[in-house]
Amino acid sequence: MSAAPLAPAAPRHRPLLTDAARPATFGVSTRDERGEVGQVRIAGEHPLTLYVDRREILTLMTLGAAPEALVIGYLRNQRLIGSLDDILSVQVDWSTQAAAVRTRGGLLDLDAKLAHRTKTTGCGSGTMFGDLMADLDTLGLPLRDDGPRLRQSTLGALAEALRHHETIYREAGAVHGCALFSLDGRLLYFVEDVGRHNAVDAIAGLMWLDGVDGSDKIFYTTGRLTSEMVIKAAQMGVPFLVSRSGLTQMGYEIACQVGMTLIGRATARRFLLFNDPGRFVFDAIGAQDS
Amino acid sequence: MSAAPLAPAAPRHRPLLTDAARPATFGVSTRDERGEVGQVRIAGEHPLTLYVDRREILTLMTLGAAPEALVIGYLRNQRLIGSLDDILSVQVDWSTQAAAVRTRGGLLDLDAKLAHRTKTTGCGSGTMFGDLMADLDTLGLPLRDDGPRLRQSTLGALAEALRHHETIYREAGAVHGCALFSLDGRLLYFVEDVGRHNAVDAIAGLMWLDGVDGSDKIFYTTGRLTSEMVIKAAQMGVPFLVSRSGLTQMGYEIACQVGMTLIGRATARRFLLFNDPGRFVFDAIGAQDS
Repeated sequence: MSAAPLAPAAPRHRPLLTDAARPATFGVSTRDERGEVGQVRIAGEHPLTLYVDRREILTLMTLGAAPEALVIGYLRNQRLIGSLDDILSVQVDWSTQAAAVRTRGGLLDLDAKLAHRTKTTGCGSGTMFGDLMADLDTLGLPLRDDGPRLRQSTLGALAEALRHHETIYREAGAVHGCALFSLDGRLLYFVEDVGRHNAVDAIAGLMWLDGVDGSDKIFYTTGRLTSEMVIKAAQMGVPFLVSRSGLTQMGYEIACQVGMTLIGRATARRFLLFNDPGRFVFDAIGAQDS
Repeated sequence: MSAAPLAPAAPRHRPLLTDAARPATFGVSTRDERGEVGQVRIAGEHPLTLYVDRREILTLMTLGAAPEALVIGYLRNQRLIGSLDDILSVQVDWSTQAAAVRTRGGLLDLDAKLAHRTKTTGCGSGTMFGDLMADLDTLGLPLRDDGPRLRQSTLGALAEALRHHETIYREAGAVHGCALFSLDGRLLYFVEDVGRHNAVDAIAGLMWLDGVDGSDKIFYTTGRLTSEMVIKAAQMGVPFLVSRSGLTQMGYEIACQVGMTLIGRATARRFLLFNDPGRFVFDAIGAQDS
């Protein structure tokens, strides 16, 4: 969650994990407007009930591409687990539609957080345990003179890089993609899910598993920039949040509050910079190849 | 929830309601790829904490266009309230971001339902209290010889009719629209919200308030057809679920299970019929003006 170190911290501990990805798409037969029978691929959607130390927490609806990372990132982004060290194992078993997590010391304030449930907005968003706004003041993304900068010429390459990875979206639609990029535009992670909140949680889980710090990264989502997306990016310490879609008032206001550089409607050539405390560098104004 | 009567039942009771709609969009300043400062409109997103008989249930994130109907439809679709008769009043106060509901007899099995939380998939989906699959067997949409039929020539007009109503989407994006149509293509309700689950819940609330039965209606959503959308349409007794977007495997499977006519990728001219027990009438094959 810290936005401090620029160099990724070394992973200190790796939980015991299954590797239980599901097939992403399934063929179904249809009839089109001409009455003709055809076959199309549709995105998988599967219930996965999360048990932590044998206690049922909730059921996630997921594509199932990265269920272990999803569960870890969910617990991280809900602030139910403070550190990867506290997770001993994640065992996903699709035959029982269950993800069993064993922890070292249990969950943080689960009952207190259960007392406040927020049904968030984003595409496939869900329960945000605890007060959505809780600790928002602690999620500041400080702007330092030697801090990370995002160059317009890099931004233009992100949308292009993603297009080559959106295999499930191109095949079946009905999914959102989230990606983590380095400041020089390298794609570090890309996850698609039927719920965009799942995709961002899975990337948060992968970052923990690999000891990747967010403070010098760019988070890219195909979905809208709502309050939940901005808060999760801030929790991951990522100062740059980019979307090809639009944003909501609360997403905008929280980005201003935490000092996040917020970019919407991003394509290979175009974008709208909605909030920037001074990290964005216009180095390609008028460039035809940006 | 019943799919029985074709004629709308007369509203038996109308709760005391506020009328606390929020402004839908807000102007923010941006900089574009040329570095030029501009103003764009973005969709509102506001927390609204639901209290039932002074007990906090959860916080909804909503555009705020129809908060009273949203709250009623949420309680209906979560099966926390069995009938509009049980709701005495809904008081929305944005200054405290609170929706206070007074009931006649309290909520149904709230504590039991809280024990099972499902984080659903759809655009802006949220907590589905209780087991998502619970009572699915009771949600059947029987196909009767004299039952409702949807004509291809009508379907073609729905997308066109909606385009004229999507004012917030055209202005600010980042919202989903849900609509209820009669079988002859008349638009009965249209609600936009930052969460598509809110838009469907608000329509469910309006249907209760007006005593409108769903069994001879068409439910149209701009969002994806996920398990949650199909279940909610089935709970409302609507046999026709149409989307301009795609669908997920679980949305498809539940539609097949409950006998719902499921149509995706719907535009003025084109569509894909994913499941139909025999209600759809191909009366415009090859028609240029469909």
